[in-house]
Amino acid sequence: MTTEFSIFEDDHFHDHCGLFGVWGVPDAARLTYLGLYAMQHRGQESAGIVTSDGQRLRLEKGMGLVNDVFDESRLDALPGDRAMGHVRYSTAGDTVAANAQPIVIDCHRGPIALGHNGNIVHAALLRHELEAAGSIFQSTSDTEVILHLYARSHRERLEDAIAASLSKVMGAFSLVFLTPDSLVAARDPWGFRPLVLGRLGEGYIVASETCALDLIDATLVRELEPGELVVVDRDGLRSFHPFPPEPVRQCVFEHVYFARPDSLVFGRNVLDSRLAMGRQLAREAPAGADIVVPVPDSGMGAALGFAEESGLPFRWGLIRNHYVGRTFIEPRQHIRSFGVKVKLNPVKSVLDGKRVVLVDDSIVRGTTSRKIVGMVREGGAREVHLRISSPPTMGPCYYGIDTPTREELIASNHSVEEIREWVGADSLAYLSQEGLLTAAGDPTGRRHCTACFSGRYPVAVSAADAQLALFAK
Amino acid sequence: MTTEFSIFEDDHFHDHCGLFGVWGVPDAARLTYLGLYAMQHRGQESAGIVTSDGQRLRLEKGMGLVNDVFDESRLDALPGDRAMGHVRYSTAGDTVAANAQPIVIDCHRGPIALGHNGNIVHAALLRHELEAAGSIFQSTSDTEVILHLYARSHRERLEDAIAASLSKVMGAFSLVFLTPDSLVAARDPWGFRPLVLGRLGEGYIVASETCALDLIDATLVRELEPGELVVVDRDGLRSFHPFPPEPVRQCVFEHVYFARPDSLVFGRNVLDSRLAMGRQLAREAPAGADIVVPVPDSGMGAALGFAEESGLPFRWGLIRNHYVGRTFIEPRQHIRSFGVKVKLNPVKSVLDGKRVVLVDDSIVRGTTSRKIVGMVREGGAREVHLRISSPPTMGPCYYGIDTPTREELIASNHSVEEIREWVGADSLAYLSQEGLLTAAGDPTGRRHCTACFSGRYPVAVSAADAQLALFAK
Amino acid sequence: MTTEFSIFEDDHFHDHCGLFGVWGVPDAARLTYLGLYAMQHRGQESAGIVTSDGQRLRLEKGMGLVNDVFDESRLDALPGDRAMGHVRYSTAGDTVAANAQPIVIDCHRGPIALGHNGNIVHAALLRHELEAAGSIFQSTSDTEVILHLYARSHRERLEDAIAASLSKVMGAFSLVFLTPDSLVAARDPWGFRPLVLGRLGEGYIVASETCALDLIDATLVRELEPGELVVVDRDGLRSFHPFPPEPVRQCVFEHVYFARPDSLVFGRNVLDSRLAMGRQLAREAPAGADIVVPVPDSGMGAALGFAEESGLPFRWGLIRNHYVGRTFIEPRQHIRSFGVKVKLNPVKSVLDGKRVVLVDDSIVRGTTSRKIVGMVREGGAREVHLRISSPPTMGPCYYGIDTPTREELIASNHSVEEIREWVGADSLAYLSQEGLLTAAGDPTGRRHCTACFSGRYPVAVSAADAQLALFAK
Amino acid sequence: MTTEFSIFEDDHFHDHCGLFGVWGVPDAARLTYLGLYAMQHRGQESAGIVTSDGQRLRLEKGMGLVNDVFDESRLDALPGDRAMGHVRYSTAGDTVAANAQPIVIDCHRGPIALGHNGNIVHAALLRHELEAAGSIFQSTSDTEVILHLYARSHRERLEDAIAASLSKVMGAFSLVFLTPDSLVAARDPWGFRPLVLGRLGEGYIVASETCALDLIDATLVRELEPGELVVVDRDGLRSFHPFPPEPVRQCVFEHVYFARPDSLVFGRNVLDSRLAMGRQLAREAPAGADIVVPVPDSGMGAALGFAEESGLPFRWGLIRNHYVGRTFIEPRQHIRSFGVKVKLNPVKSVLDGKRVVLVDDSIVRGTTSRKIVGMVREGGAREVHLRISSPPTMGPCYYGIDTPTREELIASNHSVEEIREWVGADSLAYLSQEGLLTAAGDPTGRRHCTACFSGRYPVAVSAADAQLALFAK
Repeated sequence: MTTEFSIFEDDHFHDHCGLFGVWGVPDAARLTYLGLYAMQHRGQESAGIVTSDGQRLRLEKGMGLVNDVFDESRLDALPGDRAMGHVRYSTAGDTVAANAQPIVIDCHRGPIALGHNGNIVHAALLRHELEAAGSIFQSTSDTEVILHLYARSHRERLEDAIAASLSKVMGAFSLVFLTPDSLVAARDPWGFRPLVLGRLGEGYIVASETCALDLIDATLVRELEPGELVVVDRDGLRSFHPFPPEPVRQCVFEHVYFARPDSLVFGRNVLDSRLAMGRQLAREAPAGADIVVPVPDSGMGAALGFAEESGLPFRWGLIRNHYVGRTFIEPRQHIRSFGVKVKLNPVKSVLDGKRVVLVDDSIVRGTTSRKIVGMVREGGAREVHLRISSPPTMGPCYYGIDTPTREELIASNHSVEEIREWVGADSLAYLSQEGLLTAAGDPTGRRHCTACFSGRYPVAVSAADAQLALFAK
Repeated sequence: MTTEFSIFEDDHFHDHCGLFGVWGVPDAARLTYLGLYAMQHRGQESAGIVTSDGQRLRLEKGMGLVNDVFDESRLDALPGDRAMGHVRYSTAGDTVAANAQPIVIDCHRGPIALGHNGNIVHAALLRHELEAAGSIFQSTSDTEVILHLYARSHRERLEDAIAASLSKVMGAFSLVFLTPDSLVAARDPWGFRPLVLGRLGEGYIVASETCALDLIDATLVRELEPGELVVVDRDGLRSFHPFPPEPVRQCVFEHVYFARPDSLVFGRNVLDSRLAMGRQLAREAPAGADIVVPVPDSGMGAALGFAEESGLPFRWGLIRNHYVGRTFIEPRQHIRSFGVKVKLNPVKSVLDGKRVVLVDDSIVRGTTSRKIVGMVREGGAREVHLRISSPPTMGPCYYGIDTPTREELIASNHSVEEIREWVGADSLAYLSQEGLLTAAGDPTGRRHCTACFSGRYPVAVSAADAQLALFAK
Repeated sequence: MTTEFSIFEDDHFHDHCGLFGVWGVPDAARLTYLGLYAMQHRGQESAGIVTSDGQRLRLEKGMGLVNDVFDESRLDALPGDRAMGHVRYSTAGDTVAANAQPIVIDCHRGPIALGHNGNIVHAALLRHELEAAGSIFQSTSDTEVILHLYARSHRERLEDAIAASLSKVMGAFSLVFLTPDSLVAARDPWGFRPLVLGRLGEGYIVASETCALDLIDATLVRELEPGELVVVDRDGLRSFHPFPPEPVRQCVFEHVYFARPDSLVFGRNVLDSRLAMGRQLAREAPAGADIVVPVPDSGMGAALGFAEESGLPFRWGLIRNHYVGRTFIEPRQHIRSFGVKVKLNPVKSVLDGKRVVLVDDSIVRGTTSRKIVGMVREGGAREVHLRISSPPTMGPCYYGIDTPTREELIASNHSVEEIREWVGADSLAYLSQEGLLTAAGDPTGRRHCTACFSGRYPVAVSAADAQLALFAK
Repeated sequence: MTTEFSIFEDDHFHDHCGLFGVWGVPDAARLTYLGLYAMQHRGQESAGIVTSDGQRLRLEKGMGLVNDVFDESRLDALPGDRAMGHVRYSTAGDTVAANAQPIVIDCHRGPIALGHNGNIVHAALLRHELEAAGSIFQSTSDTEVILHLYARSHRERLEDAIAASLSKVMGAFSLVFLTPDSLVAARDPWGFRPLVLGRLGEGYIVASETCALDLIDATLVRELEPGELVVVDRDGLRSFHPFPPEPVRQCVFEHVYFARPDSLVFGRNVLDSRLAMGRQLAREAPAGADIVVPVPDSGMGAALGFAEESGLPFRWGLIRNHYVGRTFIEPRQHIRSFGVKVKLNPVKSVLDGKRVVLVDDSIVRGTTSRKIVGMVREGGAREVHLRISSPPTMGPCYYGIDTPTREELIASNHSVEEIREWVGADSLAYLSQEGLLTAAGDPTGRRHCTACFSGRYPVAVSAADAQLALFAK
């Protein structure tokens, strides 16, 4: 009935989740609510919080934004000074309540809750084995697989049982577990997805991004290391490294697009990275132009960097309507035919007669870029030089990012020139891989995963797995 | 914040659930919606529907009345000509979304959904064993236990796997399973809870009560027999009796209170039973009085029977406010002190100066009866003779009915005379067990369970089990 | 989208409103909420409460049931120990928020609120005159006319200004006014619509029906007399009779259908009247039959009276589904074709093979009666003898009751025999006018309006007025 | 219960309203919905649309955002190719449904709807006179006064009646009237509030801002001239200038803060004005600093202009959480004490060790500025130089802008140095009036109202009026 107006559908890669955990702060549920709120950009489809009062776990979750799911009475139903929360993004085929997180189960080890950011690459295989052994599944989520492995472990200590379970899974995971007594956080050995540790008074906090710490004025202690497993309980914090080491492969797209500009990710401020990408792009692919215009909001940082490096003025030539929400009533055909501009409006007085450098962070399917280039021309631009602050995305991600299939990625089967022609730009340039890594503070390229650009997948994915991974979405 | 006003809390035993299943009728979800709607009195806390289009199962469920949970778009999301639905009642401690039914799982046998009316008496023990073998539980419901047993079965045929699983559980179950291909219904060998089979065109229907068949104009075929297991699939309907036979023990309280008066339960119309209970009560415990007044709505049928047998006029001396709902705003203390009568209003012109026979179906804790007797006196009654159309309830039910603990049951530790004094009646009489069974069409008492009256529990419950059963509620 | 399923549309006359007023009881808004709640049957389309704290008036109103419109926060926004509330029924064409009451205005006399039960027969004419004099109207309600007349009065005392305004209007009005300082209640000289006066502690209450007093345990003082105007303020209660006297013409349909059975209306208990109607009907039109079956809930009282007088057993042969609400999702055609019975279910074991006396309160258009007779036959009844506890309704009401046009009233253009044939009954009889009035405690017929039966309209209505009155609905 | 977290309450002047009108475009309601949507920033408290199908007016309005108030079914209830809509802002004391617009009335001239942007300075006096003549008021809005004057006019032609009414009111008004036959738009002779005329196909559009035309791809024809009255009906468009001319006094704050940056207001692009203000501010009040940081989003344009003129880098040192909405659950005290940063987060890596020029558009009460300066210091800034892109606001506005009282305006009773000290900045400078007017394209200052800066009120307001105007808010 009422759907988001589709002509400017959000054509980006998307991180699947944001995680937040608390140990030892009164009213932990409300703190978690704030933390999830700060990370709402990491997942807008479901939200959940589980708390412990030292005796039992209590869970509230639902579909929608943090603010839609929680009200005073639901937060009141979550007593305790320990909590874990989760926000989740998912694709259209998977908007099912059953997959909302955290997942809470009971087993012979007692109750435990789990929130997951990442993707287990051979989850389908593990699931098949577990089902053959009599396990039942109540969701399509790979997260449930981890809990089954845990329930079948007979290692005595909590950390050993968790470590043993995680040793059996391959792929990307930043995880937070909550039991009545303990909070456990873990990161896979490649460190695909972010996870940081903070303190608030005497308590401990874990979060996907530092902006969640900032909102509640918690102190950043450090990032969890790739392959680290941290247990917080009555005895304080203990750190383990139970997995065989792997080369670090942190997701460079956190810097390109996912993370909030004010967050510190993999030790570096995201806004700094984006400015540096724009500067590098201006050096690699300058354009004879009059102004630099960002695609709001994804191209903001890089456009400013480009403007500064090139000496061209930075101009808001496209204004975004901030009130577009999930329930916008779609105009009917006879109104759409007028060319409704619901999300973006080109500013004629800025664009008219100008040669424009238009900066965005990425091109996924290309359809949105084509519309925006057209809109900038309609606004009067004489030339449109499209600059993208990341390399062409040639392949899907299997490590916890929602990407279309390879066939849908325009760069997987078209040359840059073909893409330029299709989107209707006068020129088109992407940032080089080297440029991107340098801008992200990793000039040697040893610490980041670039699989979606380079095709170098750090964890092997068989053809069957790949299909299942996409299907599971 | 806004709660049901508590002075007339509903002090009754409550059936836990209503079940409905369809095979082979287009738009099965909408049909199931109607069937659940007709059985809303069997469970008002959650509602759920699962459908199959022959390929996959789709589930929608939520907390609230059928009408709260479902709207057009949720029904539209449930395609297929096969469906199963469930409405659920539960006590305050258990109003958790995780326990809403149907439960849908995936396992090595493929996806399956289950709705359950009843109670497995040794669920805690089975759960303990299953957890020890590595199973995880996502609810506190005994229904999940059945699904685990099913998932661990390696019998080839669906009916064998289900029968094998059910052979391991003791207690009360009327069950409906739905797989992509089949609808399976089963009743425990004692036949504690009702379940009927109907036809609609070429399709099959199963339902807890016949009123659900009536609403959709389906034809009643027959009741499922105690111990019967019925499979409906492409090859039609097949019936099995896989369990060792047991003496039939159908719940007589369905006739006393649970079922709708227009339903046929255990082969007998419920309204007929209630009229007969009232007549028998008038014979067993006549009263010198002027009028017979029912407690609305639970005492209606018996009061009319009592009036007819006694020759006294039947009068509505208490009027119920039909708009009392779940969100009524509770009056504050200074208004409550006026003696607010939200649910019932005594009719002075009916009651004034009269000797009243007040008829209700049961006394559970006694608090509500005391208030109603007081209200009838306030309305001007000169004498109040309380007549109850069932015997004193001395013990809890372990077979799927929500009852308070033995200690809370006033009749478990007080004589009839003590109860009379406490509720403030001039006289008090209960229907005898023999009288009740005769009124329910079972003069020999061979076909009904009377455990809550007689203490004769057909399926043994150990002390530990009993505690767990109550706790699980 | 989701509409009440139409095959059992509610085919009755409907009172337009319920009124409630409080003076001098703390938290008057919550008390009014309770009072409106008790009178929800008098109007289910909008609800409103205005309060005074002695300084200013505050209003909250909205579309829906009392419970839909009000929550804790809206009641909290209504401070003061004086209040007035209103529930309203209206026909489909008039479900506009602008017509919800109370209406609150400001004028040279200061702020004032008004709630109205009734109908001004020449409102259109008055409105025309007022518009010509420069008045603006923000609703289509005749109530606004009264406020304009009041605002144009220059009589000094409040009661004089109100009396002067009301002297200019013809027709039916029970009114409650609230100013910051005073509560004023008035009834037209014919006394068409009910209004009673009560006390609660030191405070005063006015209400359309006594059931509202009962719910809050207020004491009934007396009915307001026809033509009486009562002012309650700091100086206590003062009564006036400012209008020329008219013959009393109270609405007999309050006894037939509108009022709650536990209410005292025009000095007589409603349930008593209905029982007497049934008895009289049994004397006037006996039937050779086996059982007496009420159409729930409207035929309940008369059916019991009929059964008692005739000696035939009273039986619930039609069971009503109490959960039918405003948002029921209408079955689609292919399901409707099965003959869905959403509101009523015939009880086969009661009806099968029986000669049935079916009792209802009235026949308006006849369509519903036809469906119910058919349903009773489907339930197995051998004969259906329809008995109606009021005379044939031949003409519309212009005094505050929602009725269809004369053409739509089946009795206005069909003989009883024609109606019998159309509804499909074996016999049909209506209660005589004399019988009805006697049953309502008015054997001489001097105190009741019978316009809709007899065509004797106590207040003349010109053809133009009549059309406008119907149009205004 | 759940309220906007208050530490960053929005401390700005606010325009009261946005207006939109359509004549001669099918499905005018949906077009108006889009137009209001584009102007949601002009009023977020209520929204309303009235349509005409040539026969009658239909109105839907409610409290909340455009998207909250309207859904498909409400838009479907508004047929016709003519429409008028309104969004409204108001202060806390005035969040009453009765004041939501449009107001629709009936009078001797027939039905008419009115939406108003502005303020009638002597509304209280006019209201007093009208009440003395017998008028009743159903809101506290000055808009209702205009409708009363209209209803009392006896000029024959619509335009004459409207012109005559408006000739009696003093103050600020941009108005759109809708009758079944005509759309009328008018602007007061000073032209305080904006209003533009556009075309869409054969139809006409009026709107407060051009961004509403852009969204629906309508063509801008021109602004309505100050003092112009335009009638659109079957005969096309006719323009009148019925009022005595006055010096043009357009609200310069539209350029400073109210309007969307992509709108053309008073003939000039708003973003151009804001860049020019920032440049001028850099010339008037340069600062020895390292970076220029905008207060998001109000200081964006001016900060970029300042950065460009000064040669300092533009940096996002404060990141706004875009999900803050109306229902955010306020943290409890023990969490607030941690120093929660819900709306803005300082970016340490940007601010640390830097001398910062912080740019905002205005300082109203000063409390928010003080918090933001503190936050920038907490983020590590070594120096904070606050620059404001408008002059000190010394007095309230009486022409349709929501402003606090003079006493609450920090600049009305404190020197710039005192303000600097209180907000905790190292330096503070405001843009000069001349600078502002030049930046707004009016170097001679002849076309803009500067009353809130200069105290030169173009329309005299008596002390009594002023108090009433503030009270009326």
